[in-house]
Amino acid sequence: MATDPLVVGIDFGTLSGRAVVVRVRDGAELGSAVHEFGHGVLDRALPGGRPLPPDWALQVPQDYVDVLRNAVPEAIRAAGVDPADVIGVGTDFTACTMVPVKADGTPLCELPEFADNPHAYVKLWKHHAAQGQADRINQLAERRGESWLPRYGGLISSEWEFAKGLQVLEEAPEVYAAMDHWVEAADWIVWQLTGTYVRNACTAGYKGIHQDGRYPSPEFLAALNPDFADFVADKLEHPLGQLGDRAGGLSEQAAAWTGLPAGIAVAVGNVDAHVTAPAARAVEPGQMVAIMGTSTCHVMNGDVLREVPGMCGVVEGGIVPGLWGYEAGQSGVGDIFAWFVDHQVPAEYHERARERGISVHELLTELAAEQAIGEHGLIALDWHSGNRSVLVDHELSGVVVGQTLATRAEDTYRALLEATAYGTRMIIDTFTDAGVPVTELVIAGGLLRNPLLMQIYADVTNLPLSVIGSQQGPALGSALHAAVAAGAYDDIRQAAAAMGSVERGVYQPIPENVEAYERLFTEYQELHDYFGRGTNEVMHRLKALRREAVRGKN
Amino acid sequence: MATDPLVVGIDFGTLSGRAVVVRVRDGAELGSAVHEFGHGVLDRALPGGRPLPPDWALQVPQDYVDVLRNAVPEAIRAAGVDPADVIGVGTDFTACTMVPVKADGTPLCELPEFADNPHAYVKLWKHHAAQGQADRINQLAERRGESWLPRYGGLISSEWEFAKGLQVLEEAPEVYAAMDHWVEAADWIVWQLTGTYVRNACTAGYKGIHQDGRYPSPEFLAALNPDFADFVADKLEHPLGQLGDRAGGLSEQAAAWTGLPAGIAVAVGNVDAHVTAPAARAVEPGQMVAIMGTSTCHVMNGDVLREVPGMCGVVEGGIVPGLWGYEAGQSGVGDIFAWFVDHQVPAEYHERARERGISVHELLTELAAEQAIGEHGLIALDWHSGNRSVLVDHELSGVVVGQTLATRAEDTYRALLEATAYGTRMIIDTFTDAGVPVTELVIAGGLLRNPLLMQIYADVTNLPLSVIGSQQGPALGSALHAAVAAGAYDDIRQAAAAMGSVERGVYQPIPENVEAYERLFTEYQELHDYFGRGTNEVMHRLKALRREAVRGKN
Repeated sequence: MATDPLVVGIDFGTLSGRAVVVRVRDGAELGSAVHEFGHGVLDRALPGGRPLPPDWALQVPQDYVDVLRNAVPEAIRAAGVDPADVIGVGTDFTACTMVPVKADGTPLCELPEFADNPHAYVKLWKHHAAQGQADRINQLAERRGESWLPRYGGLISSEWEFAKGLQVLEEAPEVYAAMDHWVEAADWIVWQLTGTYVRNACTAGYKGIHQDGRYPSPEFLAALNPDFADFVADKLEHPLGQLGDRAGGLSEQAAAWTGLPAGIAVAVGNVDAHVTAPAARAVEPGQMVAIMGTSTCHVMNGDVLREVPGMCGVVEGGIVPGLWGYEAGQSGVGDIFAWFVDHQVPAEYHERARERGISVHELLTELAAEQAIGEHGLIALDWHSGNRSVLVDHELSGVVVGQTLATRAEDTYRALLEATAYGTRMIIDTFTDAGVPVTELVIAGGLLRNPLLMQIYADVTNLPLSVIGSQQGPALGSALHAAVAAGAYDDIRQAAAAMGSVERGVYQPIPENVEAYERLFTEYQELHDYFGRGTNEVMHRLKALRREAVRGKN
Repeated sequence: MATDPLVVGIDFGTLSGRAVVVRVRDGAELGSAVHEFGHGVLDRALPGGRPLPPDWALQVPQDYVDVLRNAVPEAIRAAGVDPADVIGVGTDFTACTMVPVKADGTPLCELPEFADNPHAYVKLWKHHAAQGQADRINQLAERRGESWLPRYGGLISSEWEFAKGLQVLEEAPEVYAAMDHWVEAADWIVWQLTGTYVRNACTAGYKGIHQDGRYPSPEFLAALNPDFADFVADKLEHPLGQLGDRAGGLSEQAAAWTGLPAGIAVAVGNVDAHVTAPAARAVEPGQMVAIMGTSTCHVMNGDVLREVPGMCGVVEGGIVPGLWGYEAGQSGVGDIFAWFVDHQVPAEYHERARERGISVHELLTELAAEQAIGEHGLIALDWHSGNRSVLVDHELSGVVVGQTLATRAEDTYRALLEATAYGTRMIIDTFTDAGVPVTELVIAGGLLRNPLLMQIYADVTNLPLSVIGSQQGPALGSALHAAVAAGAYDDIRQAAAAMGSVERGVYQPIPENVEAYERLFTEYQELHDYFGRGTNEVMHRLKALRREAVRGKN
C-alpha cells in the first residue's frame, strides 16, 4: 500500500506556536505540539531591562524559530508518523506583526548596536503606540480622498504596516535607515523556512494597503513626512505570492530544525484568522467566522464589494479566490478574561478552583451561569485593549458601570463575557446594515470551549452558532494551504471540502434570552456611542494624561 | 485630693461599638475597647437563613446591648480606673438606623412570630430598598410645595425615617400594625441605658423631617398612602431631648451590664458625625468636619440659613446650640476600599502584605503613592453604595473608566481613593456656591490614618486639612456630651474647648498637584452629571433589571 501523504500546519499565536500533523486525504489531525515563546510579549521592558512606555507590545523573532525547532519535531513524534511522508508545510501568523530586517532577513534587534533599541524589535499586532501616526494617516487620506480608504471602513489602524513604519521613522530614524525590509512576521517565518522572501497577498491587502494592484502613492507618503516618501519602494514593495501558492521548498537549514524532508512545499504566509475560514468550511457569503482567542477576528466572504464602516478591510481573494474577503475584529476578548482572572479575582476563587481541579475560568463561568440575565446589574465596554471594529480606536479603554458593594467576581466576569458578545453584535449589525448580511456565525478558537459564552453569543446576536470541528482551527487551516501548495488539491475550496470540518447550529438563540439581552444591548450601544463616538472623549484624555504622567516621571 | 471625674463615651458604628473612658478635666482618653456586632450587617439573609433581596441592610438590636455588656467594662479595665469615678455616659449612633419596637421598647424581631420577617429587624442606615417610597415622598412634596423640602437640599433620602417607615407599611402591614414606636437606634440604646424613651432633636430634625416644631402633615402622609396618615402621631411623635441634655439616670439593669454606678447621667442620644464636630473643636462657621470611615459624614455650622442643593439637611442647633447645623455625606467611602480589597485584589498582594506585616490597604497605598497623578489612566465614580450628597440617589452605582490590560490593583485602588475625594469636592463646591463657604476641612475617623488619602483630599479640594487629635472622635464627642449632661460644663462649646483636640493644617495642598487634579476633577464632574443627573439613566435601569431578574428566579 502506498504511503498516506501528510502536511504540517504551524499556527503562530500571541504567546506560543502550535504545530499539527494532518492527513491530506481527510484532514485527520494525527498529532500536535505547542511551544511557548521564551520572551512572550514585551510590554514592560526589553530583555535587557530597558523599560517600555505604555501601549507598547514587542516580540523577539528567535522565539518564532524556536517553534520550528521544538513544536514541529514534537508534533511528528506525537503523531507517531514517518516525517518522510510529509509533503508540505503551511503557516499562519498574527497580523499585523512587523519585523525590521536587513537584506538577508536578519532582524535588527539581533545586531549588537540595536539590541537596546525598542524599535529594532518585532512590533506585535497589539502594539498600540502608533496611534498618533494612524490619526495623521487617516486625516490626510480623508482630506485627499484616497480611493483606498473606504476599503478599510474609513480608518487605517495604528496596528498596521504604515502607522508602525512611520513610528519607526519618526522615533528611531537610525533604525529606519538601517532596515532594508519592513516584513510581516507571516512572511519572515516563511523566509526562514525557504530562504526566500515572498510577500503574501493577504496581509499586503489587509495590513499593507495594497488595493487594485497599488500601494499609497509617494505623494501621499511625502505629505505625511517628506522622509517617508519612499517607504513603499524602499521598505515594503516586494513580489507577492497568492494564498495556497508554493513560496518555495523547505531549506536544508529548516529541514534540520524541523526534521522534515528538505525541498517539500512551503505555502505562502497567511494570517491565523483567514486560514481558519476554510478549515471551518466557511467559504460561502454570509458565513461569518469568529476566531475567538486572545482577540477575536471576524472573517467572511462576500460576493459583492461594499463599504462597511469600521471593518478592518476588504480584499479581493483575501480569504478564498473569487470572493471579496471581509475582515473585522475585536482587539481584546480572551485576554480581557485572562487579565480579569489574574488581576481582579480574590484568592478564595483560586483555592476553590484548585480544590475542585478546575480552572478559575471554569469556576467563574459555573457561578455566572447560575445567574439570570441582568441579575448582576452591570454593563461593561470591552475596550481594555482598544476597539478594532467598528470604532477603530486604540485610545479607547474599558468601562464597568453598575458595581455595588454586593458585586462579586462572577458578576463582573459575566459582564465582561457579555460585553464581548455585544462587541460582536455591533460588528454584525454594521455589516448587515452595509449590505453584507450575516446569516450564520461559525466559532473557532479556544473560547468555544466555554458553553456559557457560546450561548450568550447566540442569544446576543440572535444567530445560530456553528462550531468548527477542530480544536486547532488555524493550524488545520495552515495544513490545508500546505496541501494546496503541495499540489494535493487544486484549490482551497476543494481542500476545505476534504479536510475542513464544522458542526452546524450547535447553539441556538433562546427567544426569552434574546429579548432580555436586547434591553442590555441597548444600554451597551448608548455607552458605546457616548464614549466611542466623540460625545465624551474622556478615554482619549485619560490616555494622554497617563502618557504625560509617565513622561514626567522619567 | 479629690477624685478626677470621668465620663464614658460609646460610639456605635456599622460593624462594632467602641467605648472610651475620658477624663472630664482635659479630655484625656484613658482606655477604650471595641466589641464587634455578632451579626454584623445582614445583607444577604436573616439569621434564620431567609434570603434578603438586593439593597437590604439589617441589624440585630441585641448586638448593641452586647457592646454595653462587653466594651464598657473592658474599657474601664483598660483605663485602670475606678468605675465609681464615672459621672456620665454619652452615646452616638449611625443614622438613620431604625428599630420597630413595642411600647416597652422590645424590638419586634425578638418576638417569635416576627423572627422570620425581615421588616421586624433594624433597618440600618445603608438599607437602600426604600428608594421607591423616597421617590414618591419627593415627588409629592415638590408638587405640594412642602416648606420643609428645601431644608433637605430638595430631596428626602431613602435612608431616612419616612421612606423606611412607608416601606414597612406597604411591604409588611402586619409589622407596621404591631409596632408601637418607630425608633432611631440612637434613642433605643439610650432607652436601654435609662429605661426611658427620649427622642433626640438631632435625628428628629435630620432624619425625621422635624422642622420649625412640626413634622409633615397628616394630609401629606395620607396622600402618600391613606394608611400612612397617622404615621407621625402613632409611631414617631415623642417628647424631644436637646443635645447635651440629660435623658435620665443609668438604670440598675444597665449598671449591671456596664459595671458603672446606677443613676449617673446618660446624655440624650446623638449621631456619630455630629458629636465629632465639638470633639475636633470645629464649632465655628466654615469649618467642615469630614468623618471618614465606612461612609463619610460632613457636618458644619453656619450662621445663616441657606438652601444647599443635595445636602442631607440643615437643623437649627443640630450640632451646637445657636448655629445652623448643616449635614452632607457620601454613602460609601471606606467600605468601597474594603470591598475592593476583599473582592478585587489577587492573592499575591495579600501574601506580600502578610510577609511584610502590613495590611493590604497599606501595601496598595504604598504602591499607589509611587504613581504620578493621572498615571493610572483611570477615573471612577464613587457610587458603589449610592450617592447621598449632592445627588441623593441610592439607585446610582459605581463606575470605573479607563481600565486596560495593563491596569493593576493599585491603579484601581488609587482611582477609588481619588473618586471619594472628588465626591467631597462636589459637596464643598455645592455648599460654597449656595452661600455657605467652606474654608477648612477637619478630618476625623479611621481613614485619617492614610496619609496618601489625606494628601489627595488636600490637593483635590485645594483646602488645608486639619486632623482631629483623637483616634476615636465620635466616642470622644459622646464623652463630651456626657460631661455636659452630667453638669461638668455649661455647654458643648465649653466642653469642646476643654476636652476636644485638633491639629491644624497638617496637610497643605501642593500647587502642582492641585492643578493636575483640576483636570481629573473636570472629567469626574462630566461623568457625575452624565450618569447622575439624568442624561443616561442606565444605572437606574440596571438596578431595575437586577430586581426583575432576582424576582424572576424566586
